[in-house]
Amino acid sequence: MLFHVEMTVNLPPDMDSAKAASLKAEEKAMAQRLQREGIWRHLWRIAGRYANVSIFDVESPAQLHDLLSQLPLFPYMDVQARALCRHPSSIHDDDR
Amino acid sequence: MLFHVEMTVNLPPDMDSAKAASLKAEEKAMAQRLQREGIWRHLWRIAGRYANVSIFDVESPAQLHDLLSQLPLFPYMDVQARALCRHPSSIHDDDR
Amino acid sequence: MLFHVEMTVNLPPDMDSAKAASLKAEEKAMAQRLQREGIWRHLWRIAGRYANVSIFDVESPAQLHDLLSQLPLFPYMDVQARALCRHPSSIHDDDR
Amino acid sequence: MLFHVEMTVNLPPDMDSAKAASLKAEEKAMAQRLQREGIWRHLWRIAGRYANVSIFDVESPAQLHDLLSQLPLFPYMDVQARALCRHPSSIHDDDR
Amino acid sequence: MLFHVEMTVNLPPDMDSAKAASLKAEEKAMAQRLQREGIWRHLWRIAGRYANVSIFDVESPAQLHDLLSQLPLFPYMDVQARALCRHPSSIHDDDR
Amino acid sequence: MLFHVEMTVNLPPDMDSAKAASLKAEEKAMAQRLQREGIWRHLWRIAGRYANVSIFDVESPAQLHDLLSQLPLFPYMDVQARALCRHPSSIHDDDR
Amino acid sequence: MLFHVEMTVNLPPDMDSAKAASLKAEEKAMAQRLQREGIWRHLWRIAGRYANVSIFDVESPAQLHDLLSQLPLFPYMDVQARALCRHPSSIHDDDR
Amino acid sequence: MLFHVEMTVNLPPDMDSAKAASLKAEEKAMAQRLQREGIWRHLWRIAGRYANVSIFDVESPAQLHDLLSQLPLFPYMDVQARALCRHPSSIHDDDR
Amino acid sequence: MLFHVEMTVNLPPDMDSAKAASLKAEEKAMAQRLQREGIWRHLWRIAGRYANVSIFDVESPAQLHDLLSQLPLFPYMDVQARALCRHPSSIHDDDR
Amino acid sequence: MLFHVEMTVNLPPDMDSAKAASLKAEEKAMAQRLQREGIWRHLWRIAGRYANVSIFDVESPAQLHDLLSQLPLFPYMDVQARALCRHPSSIHDDDR
Repeated sequence: MLFHVEMTVNLPPDMDSAKAASLKAEEKAMAQRLQREGIWRHLWRIAGRYANVSIFDVESPAQLHDLLSQLPLFPYMDVQARALCRHPSSIHDDDR
Repeated sequence: MLFHVEMTVNLPPDMDSAKAASLKAEEKAMAQRLQREGIWRHLWRIAGRYANVSIFDVESPAQLHDLLSQLPLFPYMDVQARALCRHPSSIHDDDR
Repeated sequence: MLFHVEMTVNLPPDMDSAKAASLKAEEKAMAQRLQREGIWRHLWRIAGRYANVSIFDVESPAQLHDLLSQLPLFPYMDVQARALCRHPSSIHDDDR
Repeated sequence: MLFHVEMTVNLPPDMDSAKAASLKAEEKAMAQRLQREGIWRHLWRIAGRYANVSIFDVESPAQLHDLLSQLPLFPYMDVQARALCRHPSSIHDDDR
Repeated sequence: MLFHVEMTVNLPPDMDSAKAASLKAEEKAMAQRLQREGIWRHLWRIAGRYANVSIFDVESPAQLHDLLSQLPLFPYMDVQARALCRHPSSIHDDDR
Repeated sequence: MLFHVEMTVNLPPDMDSAKAASLKAEEKAMAQRLQREGIWRHLWRIAGRYANVSIFDVESPAQLHDLLSQLPLFPYMDVQARALCRHPSSIHDDDR
Repeated sequence: MLFHVEMTVNLPPDMDSAKAASLKAEEKAMAQRLQREGIWRHLWRIAGRYANVSIFDVESPAQLHDLLSQLPLFPYMDVQARALCRHPSSIHDDDR
Repeated sequence: MLFHVEMTVNLPPDMDSAKAASLKAEEKAMAQRLQREGIWRHLWRIAGRYANVSIFDVESPAQLHDLLSQLPLFPYMDVQARALCRHPSSIHDDDR
Repeated sequence: MLFHVEMTVNLPPDMDSAKAASLKAEEKAMAQRLQREGIWRHLWRIAGRYANVSIFDVESPAQLHDLLSQLPLFPYMDVQARALCRHPSSIHDDDR
Repeated sequence: MLFHVEMTVNLPPDMDSAKAASLKAEEKAMAQRLQREGIWRHLWRIAGRYANVSIFDVESPAQLHDLLSQLPLFPYMDVQARALCRHPSSIHDDDR
């Protein structure tokens, strides 16, 4: 099932730069692994903000929560997740 | 360029049912034409609400506005549009 | 899967009383049928408001949306749906 | 009487990990004790957020407040409590 | 138990004046009866607004809801109810 | 004249516990003195929150401000004060 | 005592123009009478909005409420009133 | 002096189309006259909304208010005006 | 021209008391100088809050900004400024 | 294409003054370079706030994001970007 997830990242500006770089690298690795697995289906940057809009394709709300809460930047994020469903006017088979 | 568009529809509950059906049919036809043309790239229903989340792929903000404002349900909608850009962690070529 | 749904009803105060009574009776019948089927798992009134908090147990976000949008009072409701998942501290097997 | 309680936890990301683990363990123990006593009737995680929705069955608002304010994570929580009452369409005897 | 109730009245300015007067008279009668019965313990006007702050002393959230929803002006009100409990610094026996 | 005052306390969770205890003891002493003097007429805890709803009976807005700003916890509070006046439906002489 | 009052007027655009003109003329007459009496001490237009910021000098919150609720446009207004008091840095004797 | 003005237009969807067309034509004529006079310095559409962002160059807040309140669509608009001033980093002489 | 300015001060509760006293003394001195010069025309305390409502009479938005941003407490303030203009119902010549 | 960007700067009041001065100088240099290049088309201060309203003329949302996120003060900013398009009533060729 699909979820629309919006993540806003609030890193403290005075965070140690090595720690920040490390967190971001781990975040990127996990995000790319989940994309390769077909779970993190889309990932876009919102222009002008340290934030993204994502589409997740998961087996359950529990799987969604587990994945999001394991993200290295999760403790610094505000996350909003909303369930999506097929729109009656959609012609795309995978806009489930 | 991509835009994230969220549309919430507020049809008056006492609208004439024939008029409502006609508006919805015209809306659906235009939405499907724009999907076939590759402009309205994704269209999802937000579970539990008369609202959708959409991704538009347009040539300019002007094209986006022209299309949205020509939707038959536009006078009844609250619309929020935000520009998207490629996320540095995305591995999908078309998550531009 | 479980969803937390909050519905606020905004009936126009001057609605024809027969129509209002009819809508409410149909709403009640559908709500009770869905409770008997185990889908509408909990239904509580929020004290002081024409609103409820409900727990739905559905097979998909699509099923949730279909059911909610078929409620006779749906055109008069503001609805917020959020996906729930099992809490690591829960001891109740059915607080999935 | 029943209360709908929504708790959002805001632990500082840089909290000492041993202290955080200790607080969470104490929180879990108290939550499970209150569930066994029938007071904390339901406990669900909101997917994607460090937050829960709970149903408390207490003897008074005072008891509710005492319990919530004794939670080890209470100083880090934003809590919203709303009184529930039986919905006229409910068929469940314990949705009081 | 005590509830803090805030009611904001939104009468349509073009309501028939006889109907408005009748509704207000019935509202006043019911409010005064509930005060005499000790249920509607306090009733204050918020200066400058067609709104009040009230303290209700009821046996249950269900009683509170029944009373509020029977108020003649209820269909025109926005109502917020919050449960109160004794404050540890209070010296007044009836600020329960 | 009467004021409806809502105070929400935001003590830092890591405040030195002796300092916190001292501030709370001084706050309680001042609150009880003002209650004995008839100025702080009512004091209730909002169930589930480190917050109170109070009714002050003061000679002027200046007196209200002086008292509130001298509260030991004032620097940690968010305070909202609204003037009350007699409601035309009140039957209580002291709901002035 | 002084109150800071902000009034936003929401006249229906399709109100009968003679009725609107009449309401506005009565409003103006009452506003000017109250200014002459020293009660409505200041009256400013907020640039760009059908709204005003006013300073009232009244004997009590009750007087404030009586005056505001008698304004011909009151049924069409959103009103916010806040009590003012002398600022310790003020050098103006009448900024009480 | 410069003002940043944001106007959102809320025309009723069922307004008579001839009346709507007439209002819009008058609005356009006045907007273009003010642009030619150098007063309405910039006028942009916000993509996806029936709204605009404008920069006005006026002699006083009073002139701004007079112009805005004379716009034919003013009764249907929500308007927010904020004063601008020269930014210390600006290199444009007319970004006063 | 007149501006309505609302300033809310957020001093950290643990600020060094000598530094706080010094900042406040400088703020007071500057506020009183500007009052004597006729620029800071009114200054009121909002009852119950560490906040003020002020009326400034300045030559331009630039002068307003320069003065506000030079206030010693400016880095700790949330400031909202709105331009005022003469109200057609005002009888006071200096309510410009 | 044009974007309307509003930036609010939240520098910690206790930031080292040399560091703050350095950040501001770098910010100014980059802002002026982008103005000279025709990208940062307008830059205004919002009177009374440490905030600006800007108009950017960029080739893509990606370019906008890259520029904004490279601003030295970006980690301390809240940024809102909205796409603009030509208004049908505009007479200015470059109000694209």
